Amino acid sequence: MSEYLLHCFIESGNAYKAALMLELSGADWEARPVAYFDGITRTAEWRESLNEMGEAPVLEHHGKRLSQSGVILDYLSQQTGRFGPESEDEKREIWRWILFDNHKFTSYYATLRFMFGIQKSGDTPVTEFLRTRARGAYAVVDKHLETRDFLLGSRPTIADLSLAGYVFYKEETGIDRAAEFPNVEAWAARIAALPGWKAPADLMPPAA
Amino acid sequence: MSEYLLHCFIESGNAYKAALMLELSGADWEARPVAYFDGITRTAEWRESLNEMGEAPVLEHHGKRLSQSGVILDYLSQQTGRFGPESEDEKREIWRWILFDNHKFTSYYATLRFMFGIQKSGDTPVTEFLRTRARGAYAVVDKHLETRDFLLGSRPTIADLSLAGYVFYKEETGIDRAAEFPNVEAWAARIAALPGWKAPADLMPPAA
Repeated sequence: MSEYLLHCFIESGNAYKAALMLELSGADWEARPVAYFDGITRTAEWRESLNEMGEAPVLEHHGKRLSQSGVILDYLSQQTGRFGPESEDEKREIWRWILFDNHKFTSYYATLRFMFGIQKSGDTPVTEFLRTRARGAYAVVDKHLETRDFLLGSRPTIADLSLAGYVFYKEETGIDRAAEFPNVEAWAARIAALPGWKAPADLMPPAA
Repeated sequence: MSEYLLHCFIESGNAYKAALMLELSGADWEARPVAYFDGITRTAEWRESLNEMGEAPVLEHHGKRLSQSGVILDYLSQQTGRFGPESEDEKREIWRWILFDNHKFTSYYATLRFMFGIQKSGDTPVTEFLRTRARGAYAVVDKHLETRDFLLGSRPTIADLSLAGYVFYKEETGIDRAAEFPNVEAWAARIAALPGWKAPADLMPPAA
């Protein structure tokens, strides 16, 4: 049995954040597929046994059961000594970006990609709303990365792994990242060049 | 000059999270109004001098400039010794709820209240989308509070102050909180009964 067990599936960029952290840190981990498209994360059983918030990923480690990708990333950085802050100021800066990611950068983009790219909704008032908001969040990050290799400067941290959750998926969103946000595009390429990096489909199982 | 300076305005529940924490902790603080409805938080000047993310609140303290309400709450709990975690497990539990708040509980509700309650958009596909998502997040919290006075159990923490950001505003959202989410309603009343509690309009200035 591996040291870490991650409940995850290919299509979930939030799960990918945790899977990528485990992989890049060289942790001894295994994946447990989630029957997401059967709605299992919203069942009473999932909520009672794994996560009352009705979401994946969930990380199990030494009897602990952790949810919320930001909490998992922070926990793993402490456990592995990798990609964490080196000062209190850096710790706050990391949380600042993880919160921005959860509120705006991942949030709007991931929902847009789910509706427009996976469910093939076509354009609707909701996808237009989400795309406008996602573009606003991407513009903030693009500007920040104009003068930096990674969010905190010269080295990657869990803040980068959080924001990188959905940037390697190929489904259509109606946003042309390379043209509109070249600094995000270059940063994503730097993440993909980290030793041991793998794409979502090479790290996680399909939904059960 | 006060010890803490908070850039805030009445209508911002995200600013209220920080203002309420400062007030309940007995901090020496003052408010600096924000010309939010003139769009100042999205100007280049605001982004360069206060917060590149284009948002309020911003807290200034001893030369530090902090943004993201979750970071501000965590910082203030360390500075004041109030409403913080008492163990590593509690710290993770607090962050778990603050992240859920930023991603879903505050996020969908606050945008719904802005469009439907302040801009008077009427019902649109976007407000219907936001209301469905807000109800989902409220249901998670309502269930959690069925057996607890506060999110972590018997005492209030910064997790409660984060989720309480928008629950005291009166604008219409199309959600009848008292009827649909009675445990959230009772919890909001417990927050309002904390010694020193004040409503948003009694803590913060109108938008400049």
